Amino acid sequence: MNIPGENFRTIWPHPEDPRVVRIIDQRQLPHRYVVCDLATHQDGARAIRDMMVRGAPLIGATAAWSLYLAALEAERTAKSRQARLDFILEAAETLNATRPTAVNLRWAIERMLDVIRGTDDADSLTERLRREAAAICDEDVAISRAIGEHGVELIAAIAERNGGNPVNILTHCNAGSLATINWGTATAPIYIAHERGIPIHVWVDETRPRNQGSQLTAWELARSGIAHTVIVDNAGGHLMQHGQVDLCITGTDRTTRSGDVANKIGTYLKALAARDSDVPFYVALPSTTIDWTISDGVREIPIEERGGEEVSHITGLDGEVVRTVRAIAEDSPVANFAFDVTPARLVTGLITERGICAASEEGIAGLFPERAGAVA
Amino acid sequence: MNIPGENFRTIWPHPEDPRVVRIIDQRQLPHRYVVCDLATHQDGARAIRDMMVRGAPLIGATAAWSLYLAALEAERTAKSRQARLDFILEAAETLNATRPTAVNLRWAIERMLDVIRGTDDADSLTERLRREAAAICDEDVAISRAIGEHGVELIAAIAERNGGNPVNILTHCNAGSLATINWGTATAPIYIAHERGIPIHVWVDETRPRNQGSQLTAWELARSGIAHTVIVDNAGGHLMQHGQVDLCITGTDRTTRSGDVANKIGTYLKALAARDSDVPFYVALPSTTIDWTISDGVREIPIEERGGEEVSHITGLDGEVVRTVRAIAEDSPVANFAFDVTPARLVTGLITERGICAASEEGIAGLFPERAGAVA
Repeated sequence: MNIPGENFRTIWPHPEDPRVVRIIDQRQLPHRYVVCDLATHQDGARAIRDMMVRGAPLIGATAAWSLYLAALEAERTAKSRQARLDFILEAAETLNATRPTAVNLRWAIERMLDVIRGTDDADSLTERLRREAAAICDEDVAISRAIGEHGVELIAAIAERNGGNPVNILTHCNAGSLATINWGTATAPIYIAHERGIPIHVWVDETRPRNQGSQLTAWELARSGIAHTVIVDNAGGHLMQHGQVDLCITGTDRTTRSGDVANKIGTYLKALAARDSDVPFYVALPSTTIDWTISDGVREIPIEERGGEEVSHITGLDGEVVRTVRAIAEDSPVANFAFDVTPARLVTGLITERGICAASEEGIAGLFPERAGAVA
Repeated sequence: MNIPGENFRTIWPHPEDPRVVRIIDQRQLPHRYVVCDLATHQDGARAIRDMMVRGAPLIGATAAWSLYLAALEAERTAKSRQARLDFILEAAETLNATRPTAVNLRWAIERMLDVIRGTDDADSLTERLRREAAAICDEDVAISRAIGEHGVELIAAIAERNGGNPVNILTHCNAGSLATINWGTATAPIYIAHERGIPIHVWVDETRPRNQGSQLTAWELARSGIAHTVIVDNAGGHLMQHGQVDLCITGTDRTTRSGDVANKIGTYLKALAARDSDVPFYVALPSTTIDWTISDGVREIPIEERGGEEVSHITGLDGEVVRTVRAIAEDSPVANFAFDVTPARLVTGLITERGICAASEEGIAGLFPERAGAVA
């Protein structure tokens, strides 16, 4: 986020207590800005499972910091090296099970486990895990900035054609600062465009059922002084049909090596509308969200089903009081699919930390030859 | 609605007071079932404008009954025949201005004005207007039943292929009993399938921003004992991609003579998803929603923009109390487009009271040659 004089981050070590990691309870935004302390890996697992934190990179970072917390717990409770390791490995299992779709979660846990595998000295393990979690966060900030630097070129090119009129960008869900450590993925080009003085306006999809667009993306953009308008998820097709969207940028929770993207439910509908109205549809991602093992996203990516109360109940402000109301009749059943898969054929391009590429096996392999080769 | 022993209607003359017409305040559903009395045409105009009643046929019927109420008012307040007529014509203007998109509103008003033009005897005018409004309602019930009888054949054919599994039907918004006098348009085939014992299950789109799906369609279906599941508007594409929708049926507020349909915002996105997954996408309509004067819906149909509070605020139950909460941050602007246009190329067919036809000028003219000829 572009807040003057503020070094914004979504997860950070407690400045006075090294045994504690802090997060923002994002479920309470935009109504309350509440910082929470994580003191155990179970706190971290709960923060992920209950969506106090969400967004692929932040979920990964939270899991990484949680394994550092697990190492601290193991020091306090277990004596032998093996008992400590068992405790941490069990914590990794717990964290792995919190969200089934997020490939980034597994990537971060794997990276922390690599540190464990590479550390013979049990006494230095905790400190090494702390440094690794911090490095994951610093690298994520650098990756977001790089995504932004590449993506801003798309916006600058449209701005040039628009003759001074704002570039209208539509985004779905929150692939923003709050989903990463800062800057976001889909929003990184937006923040950098704003820094550079390019006139922009963002259409913010509400993003039912959890309203991450109207409650998080809108909050971020408002705090950063970026022009934006909240719309219901149903409105994007109409806007694109009438030339009111120059560019769509969304994030992705999981990307196949062929360029299919699993992102917040409803992304697929926006991609269909973009194709129907010839609006460029880009997906911004750190390469850690690429799952090199799968190719057919629609068939192979399991879609998380979440509790129906996310659909039936809505939280908001009634005067000064935060309340949750039931918005549907008591006797109506509800289903809640968290993600959908947008096939690569609907994606104009992928914006990664290494540059922009086609959403195809060749396009991705061109930017990440070392990974593509390793699997093929 | 299929409620045993109940002759359900959405608008009806007060059984004891001929100067009063009754409606259901649909804004309070599903939390409260409140019946309201309309005693003046201004009451009727407010009921339409504030969406106590909605849905093309019910809006038309409410306008018709409101002109009957205007005639009663004119009797009470104006002496000369001309003064009475002027009063009623002014009421017609007021009613015409309540909702810009609804062609059916104008059709019903025009029909009532025809009665005025055809009546020399000022004393019998009020009674004639009463009879015309009642006839509009009776005809609408017959039209809905006819739409249902034609549309149910589509469901029956799928049921036969499904080998006893329920036919999964997706609908958007409320083109249900509550949008008409009874039976609805999109829901009429569903109610008749249920009457005939065909196994069905309905995916009910929430339909942001006003939630007519989760609050009205789900309420109707629950009261009628029809299996259904409420989903967010974002979910339909995913379901179609995975073969979980056999058929989409929506309503339309305005249909061009070429088969473009203006319906609740978001309909277009579902039609795009249906085409992408080869799911049949039907639109059910009384022919009164056909605007014979226009052909290009995207260019020619004005899209109503409504107040932002419909997006920012949500009403629901908190315990036993109905409350409205603000679901987005105070400082985020909101836009609220009420409808979008689905081009005919995405519509598999139109289900009308005269049968099913292609969504094309030829298809529609084939069923309504007398109207098509009159314009061409």
